[in-house]
Amino acid sequence: MEKIGEGKTKEVFLLDEDHVLLKFKDTVTAGDGAKADVILGKGVLNAQTSAIIFRLLEREGISTHYVGMKDDRTMIAKKLKMIPVEVVLRNIATGSIVKRLPINEGEIFDPPIVEFFLKDDARHDPLLNYHHMRYLKLMEEGEAKEIEQIMFKVNEVLRRVVTNMKLSLYDFKLEFGRFNGRLMIGDEISLDSMRVRDPESGRILDKDLYRRGQPLEVVKASYSEFFNRLTQVV
Amino acid sequence: MEKIGEGKTKEVFLLDEDHVLLKFKDTVTAGDGAKADVILGKGVLNAQTSAIIFRLLEREGISTHYVGMKDDRTMIAKKLKMIPVEVVLRNIATGSIVKRLPINEGEIFDPPIVEFFLKDDARHDPLLNYHHMRYLKLMEEGEAKEIEQIMFKVNEVLRRVVTNMKLSLYDFKLEFGRFNGRLMIGDEISLDSMRVRDPESGRILDKDLYRRGQPLEVVKASYSEFFNRLTQVV
Ligand SMILES: Nc1ncnc2c1ncn2[C@@H]1O[C@H](COP(=O)(O)OP(=O)(O)OP(=O)(O)O)[C@@H](O)[C@H]1O
Ligand SMILES: Nc1ncnc2c1ncn2[C@@H]1O[C@H](COP(=O)(O)OP(=O)(O)OP(=O)(O)O)[C@@H](O)[C@H]1O
Ligand SMILES: [Mg+2]
Ligand SMILES: [Mg+2]
Repeated sequence: MEKIGEGKTKEVFLLDEDHVLLKFKDTVTAGDGAKADVILGKGVLNAQTSAIIFRLLEREGISTHYVGMKDDRTMIAKKLKMIPVEVVLRNIATGSIVKRLPINEGEIFDPPIVEFFLKDDARHDPLLNYHHMRYLKLMEEGEAKEIEQIMFKVNEVLRRVVTNMKLSLYDFKLEFGRFNGRLMIGDEISLDSMRVRDPESGRILDKDLYRRGQPLEVVKASYSEFFNRLTQVV
Repeated sequence: MEKIGEGKTKEVFLLDEDHVLLKFKDTVTAGDGAKADVILGKGVLNAQTSAIIFRLLEREGISTHYVGMKDDRTMIAKKLKMIPVEVVLRNIATGSIVKRLPINEGEIFDPPIVEFFLKDDARHDPLLNYHHMRYLKLMEEGEAKEIEQIMFKVNEVLRRVVTNMKLSLYDFKLEFGRFNGRLMIGDEISLDSMRVRDPESGRILDKDLYRRGQPLEVVKASYSEFFNRLTQVV
């Protein structure tokens, strides 16, 4: 099968005119690729976690690229024309926003804050406004507004699930693409792309463990625990 | 008279309940204050340049804080509740945008790009989107849209004048405030806050001369020349 793309965590193969296979690798990276490691089994965990969440979203009427699973680490997905933008929704302040703005760790955003970042590792994923996105031919303002509405809907679904797991959803990142011009969620939804903490102890379960230098076994155990708890509530 | 504020280039005195005096200093700074010098006469030039431009805008029906001049470096202005945001409109790419985004020096923005930055030297004036501005209680999205419309109107007026001077307006920065809740342009409009170049030779006339390390006499001569040419076209 023809490989048509590869990123830091997934390989993309052309299945047919309208479909791709997304093969999740065992790599974990941080700092725009500056730090990278292998965690055996992580690819399967992220593929399975993503699959469960995409099915949940589809059930709620939210369009995603998800079609099914080919094997335990390979997703069958609609072939999207990806928009090279990361869309972030934040419920609780942590990460880059507390470094960039006069906002402290733990501040609550209600309503949530949505941000668009250009996928551009060399420029460290700069923040975009609607004017930039129009000029760079990424999306029109109307589409950006549509994406913001989808982000809010996804947030409701994810928060419900994460709350049922007795955890707290700090933020998450989605990537969008177009299928016959229609906007659709692509890529993955896993602990690499959302921040989840224990509301009591503050314990971190997501990729921040890796960013902060925790041993790879600790990262793996946490991804594994999250997946198990997820399967129990859905 | 009571001094109620002072920044890098102006002192603010309370004239009466509704008015301030803005005294333009002879200081010039760059790099969020990292670089600073004195150019004798610069305060007068920037005060006079600003006064001419504010009168032009008022004549076109655009609300500004400008009331009149007290002396050659001191402006009488409505006392605004300033919004600590710099609003930038770009016609031609130069400066921070070509460093942040995959955009090259000299690219033309049509329609222009508008950006909002938090006035926060320590954080190097970070870019803001509507969500950030609402959360930080800077302005609601409706007000931001209103400000964008004012930016476009100001651009038309400034471009007309600058074109009449046989020069090209690359970009400019405005600061806004509220007077009885009404939005109004405050601060200054001078070569410290707009980028103007000769379209033929590419010669720079604005504060980029200072940012790029030109001798202070060269900067002063350019500000002076711009003011003289401005008085000839208005
Ligand atoms: N449904 C889809 N159709 C087509 N491409 C997709 C789809 N879903 C995801 N992709 C693309 O798969 C590629 C590989 O994903 P991965 O997460 O490994 O990339 P990355 O490390 O984020 O970086 P980059 O996007 O720069 O390659 C990405 O370019 C992503 O946009
Ligand atoms: N009409 C006005 N009413 C009240 N304050 C004003 C008005 N116009 C400008 N100011 C304020 O005058 C102050 C001094 O201006 P200056 O340009 O020197 O400040 P600055 O160096 O940009 O930095 P800072 O705003 O952090 O003091 C600024 O805080 C500005 O917001
Ligand atoms: Mg990725
Ligand atoms: Mg100033």
